Amino acid sequence: MKLFRLTNNGWVGNFAIINNKVYVLLSDPVTALKLYSEGKEVPLGPEVNVNVDELLNRDYTYRGLRFTRPYDPIEVWGSGIVYEVARSRYTEEDVAMIKGKTIYELVYDAERPEIFFKGTANRCVGHGEPIAVRSDSEWTLPEPELGVVIDSRGKILAYTVSDDVSARDLEAQNPLYLPQSKIYNNSCAMGPFLVTPDEVGNPYDLTISMRIIRGSAVVFEGSISTSKMRRRVEDQIKYLIRDNAVPDGTLLSTGTAVIPPRPITLMHGDVVEISITRLGTQRTPVIKLGK
Amino acid sequence: MKLFRLTNNGWVGNFAIINNKVYVLLSDPVTALKLYSEGKEVPLGPEVNVNVDELLNRDYTYRGLRFTRPYDPIEVWGSGIVYEVARSRYTEEDVAMIKGKTIYELVYDAERPEIFFKGTANRCVGHGEPIAVRSDSEWTLPEPELGVVIDSRGKILAYTVSDDVSARDLEAQNPLYLPQSKIYNNSCAMGPFLVTPDEVGNPYDLTISMRIIRGSAVVFEGSISTSKMRRRVEDQIKYLIRDNAVPDGTLLSTGTAVIPPRPITLMHGDVVEISITRLGTQRTPVIKLGK
Amino acid sequence: MKLFRLTNNGWVGNFAIINNKVYVLLSDPVTALKLYSEGKEVPLGPEVNVNVDELLNRDYTYRGLRFTRPYDPIEVWGSGIVYEVARSRYTEEDVAMIKGKTIYELVYDAERPEIFFKGTANRCVGHGEPIAVRSDSEWTLPEPELGVVIDSRGKILAYTVSDDVSARDLEAQNPLYLPQSKIYNNSCAMGPFLVTPDEVGNPYDLTISMRIIRGSAVVFEGSISTSKMRRRVEDQIKYLIRDNAVPDGTLLSTGTAVIPPRPITLMHGDVVEISITRLGTQRTPVIKLGK
Amino acid sequence: MKLFRLTNNGWVGNFAIINNKVYVLLSDPVTALKLYSEGKEVPLGPEVNVNVDELLNRDYTYRGLRFTRPYDPIEVWGSGIVYEVARSRYTEEDVAMIKGKTIYELVYDAERPEIFFKGTANRCVGHGEPIAVRSDSEWTLPEPELGVVIDSRGKILAYTVSDDVSARDLEAQNPLYLPQSKIYNNSCAMGPFLVTPDEVGNPYDLTISMRIIRGSAVVFEGSISTSKMRRRVEDQIKYLIRDNAVPDGTLLSTGTAVIPPRPITLMHGDVVEISITRLGTQRTPVIKLGK
Repeated sequence: MKLFRLTNNGWVGNFAIINNKVYVLLSDPVTALKLYSEGKEVPLGPEVNVNVDELLNRDYTYRGLRFTRPYDPIEVWGSGIVYEVARSRYTEEDVAMIKGKTIYELVYDAERPEIFFKGTANRCVGHGEPIAVRSDSEWTLPEPELGVVIDSRGKILAYTVSDDVSARDLEAQNPLYLPQSKIYNNSCAMGPFLVTPDEVGNPYDLTISMRIIRGSAVVFEGSISTSKMRRRVEDQIKYLIRDNAVPDGTLLSTGTAVIPPRPITLMHGDVVEISITRLGTQRTPVIKLGK
Repeated sequence: MKLFRLTNNGWVGNFAIINNKVYVLLSDPVTALKLYSEGKEVPLGPEVNVNVDELLNRDYTYRGLRFTRPYDPIEVWGSGIVYEVARSRYTEEDVAMIKGKTIYELVYDAERPEIFFKGTANRCVGHGEPIAVRSDSEWTLPEPELGVVIDSRGKILAYTVSDDVSARDLEAQNPLYLPQSKIYNNSCAMGPFLVTPDEVGNPYDLTISMRIIRGSAVVFEGSISTSKMRRRVEDQIKYLIRDNAVPDGTLLSTGTAVIPPRPITLMHGDVVEISITRLGTQRTPVIKLGK
Repeated sequence: MKLFRLTNNGWVGNFAIINNKVYVLLSDPVTALKLYSEGKEVPLGPEVNVNVDELLNRDYTYRGLRFTRPYDPIEVWGSGIVYEVARSRYTEEDVAMIKGKTIYELVYDAERPEIFFKGTANRCVGHGEPIAVRSDSEWTLPEPELGVVIDSRGKILAYTVSDDVSARDLEAQNPLYLPQSKIYNNSCAMGPFLVTPDEVGNPYDLTISMRIIRGSAVVFEGSISTSKMRRRVEDQIKYLIRDNAVPDGTLLSTGTAVIPPRPITLMHGDVVEISITRLGTQRTPVIKLGK
Repeated sequence: MKLFRLTNNGWVGNFAIINNKVYVLLSDPVTALKLYSEGKEVPLGPEVNVNVDELLNRDYTYRGLRFTRPYDPIEVWGSGIVYEVARSRYTEEDVAMIKGKTIYELVYDAERPEIFFKGTANRCVGHGEPIAVRSDSEWTLPEPELGVVIDSRGKILAYTVSDDVSARDLEAQNPLYLPQSKIYNNSCAMGPFLVTPDEVGNPYDLTISMRIIRGSAVVFEGSISTSKMRRRVEDQIKYLIRDNAVPDGTLLSTGTAVIPPRPITLMHGDVVEISITRLGTQRTPVIKLGK
């Protein structure tokens, strides 16, 4: 099952795709995912006559309708340094070091993962909605990641395409600026879909690919397989919920491995396109805040 | 515009029909009616691939989906003795009289209409849902009526088929039993649709027809034109809201004129079918409470 | 236990009196009554330093605070012709008759009581708040009654002073006008207190007394004992909830017996004062609507 | 004005202290603070007959009543390295360094402050409620801080005593573990009171003092003046709300300067006592999670 939401004038509707047919979803998305995960019937309405591909592509709107974030997560969390490339990438910078090792190398090798608070529903956008560069950042990058939706006990309810947009210059200046680098308006994108585990299959054989498009040019293109994920998702979740009550429907973004090299940075007017096998393609325009 | 709702396992979805196409309705029905009445855009979702006629007819369910009441009115009110036939019908009984005239004749000729409280959303059912005979009534009749949905200032937002089911024996015994005759579980049916005034046109040239079906037999059949309505709808509304604040979306059932003769009474297992021009056909099975 | 509410600028607080001490009530009133009726602990806050008698009397306000209705009943119902005096009083008028008996005589002698819908919270006022005369009524009377608060199964949770204000001329003109006589803005008063059954004791040895004060004159004074109640409260409740789901906290006003004689009518500026043994004294100013 | 809340069996009541008198507060705390900050009248109920000092001290409960967190903040944020002592304290450890300077020295000297997400209402406790040591931390410290309650535009509505409990060992191991060090169940304490700016006066002449009590011994005692705060509160707020929409009533904990030396750590059964001039004394027992 895939879930998505469409919006029109601030009103939102829930939909489900099952066997290539699109249905009205009568419950909220998290309830539907919980019912589905327990093998119970999901409350479907009638079939919907919509060409989802067209709606995803046609400049993001169709008869006033457009995609929006697939649900409203109460809490969004992220993981860091989950892939080998993330560790080594950061060692090229003047990053913080402890006893001769960078903090990224240390966390990569440690048992405990890096887990951070990423935001709340109001800071998240969906397919076709703008992600942002902070007004005080000159170097901001998208981080294309496998997102997992969990219940309060850590059970995986769904997967999604997640973009953990980060002000890299703040973070590089001092790891203590990580929250400011990570948590701000329009700093998180998710969707277009929530996809249940049965449709995703093995989460470690997915290809995450990203393109940054500026005008008619592709200024960055890269991809990686989730098979390169060193830190397993279950392990990340274990630490996230240890002594830390999270609500049903918490979104965890499981770390990036596609990292545009310097001097690439997101600029106002760019479009970021992220695809993950079986999870679809998320396209988001970029805005610079304070403009 | 026509609005209707479908239910599945207790969850409910809102839909709109415009130009013979069915759309997901993203707002609640009363908000949609208010927007429509003000000439504003109603928040529609995508087109729905459903054969409404089939859904209305196929034994009331289709893939777990069935019609339900088209919205949840906070208050439902009714009018009485609006048609000439109602006045004269009741004069055949031993009804209450004041100075030689029955109370029905008196109200028929009076300036002030009979207006009564009919119930709340939880006492109302929709197309395909059971209306009821009180456990202590031996003579209960459906009352097929033109229903109007108004806002708090009395503006007509929509019309619907309404059934003001009444325990006629209680009412006939003493007019002081009218509330017990009128207000009880499953005593009110509405729908299948809410239809906006522009689609209804002249509300005084509609035909209201009713059939009571018992097994394979039609035990009653009758019809009347709303042109026979002596008490205009606007006049009823004027008295309803005089010194009496009603909420947006109040339903007023505007009086019956199709009255099955004695000894006809609703019985457990009957089906009542009410049609009104341009408003559709409502079919409801009958249950006897306390069974 | 006695419960009451105070209001200031539209905000409302709940309070409980136990053993002559006043406490903040931390739950809503109906929850508190249900807990109390089940022998469970009511969630009390600290003791409140307020002279309740002074607050009841001092022109209804004290430091911006004043009494308001003791809770928000979702539904209010009334009973009629419960006392012998009610029956005979009405027989003096030209009331509706069936086969030589007035409808009031008939209901008085019948097994089935008269039960009617009286309104909703927004139509009810509390101690010190204005009750109203309809703009189109020239003869409106207060009806001082014993009010009972019940749960959805009919269990009595509390008693209160209730005033079923009625447009007597509408009702006298035609019993079909009863709903318009009974249900309108500010047509119901309750309080000052909700009093639990253990503090009330025998509900059939209470004295209900009423005074209508106009300027410095008492234009009516009367009283009756609830021992004169022919229709027992439990019997009324039995009919109210028969086949009729009512919500927890439904208020039933159990019928009047103190009836000012003609030509007395409530007038703008009057004050109605109703006392019931162990339930306190309710005073409400009178307004004429449409003025 | 001081605001506080009391709880009994899960139910909560709001109270205000004005001129040494305690009143029932009829609105929620954040609304009251907003009204007060705009010079509008706060909706007070009657005076409450409670000895606040006794209630604060008597083993935390009085007739079933006890203090709880003074409100439910939707978001709690913290600042770090605000005082000189914080910077130098951490340089003794093997902390992360960038080009020869510790990350704490760097942030201390930088224009941009350290701002981090600290949690949500459900992770916060009030006076008398337990703060916690993570099950996987061996070195956890309280951080006594001046807390400020702001509206969505950054205006200071109130001050409070705040305890930013932190798993120091996680944080010391790697700054990337800061969120796990800071955000977990019972990791934040606030109160007993919210105190409006007019009662606090100059926020930079307050003394913050803390004692850690183990059995009958005081194992740590320390204090500092907020005059030593290098990073002004307004400056912290400026960065918190830059490009980052926070809700009305957000709590910001403005950094610690009272830091118990090694090997002191909080242990199950300890009591932490934090006092701030004019803001009162907060006492919280300590529990070890997973026990």
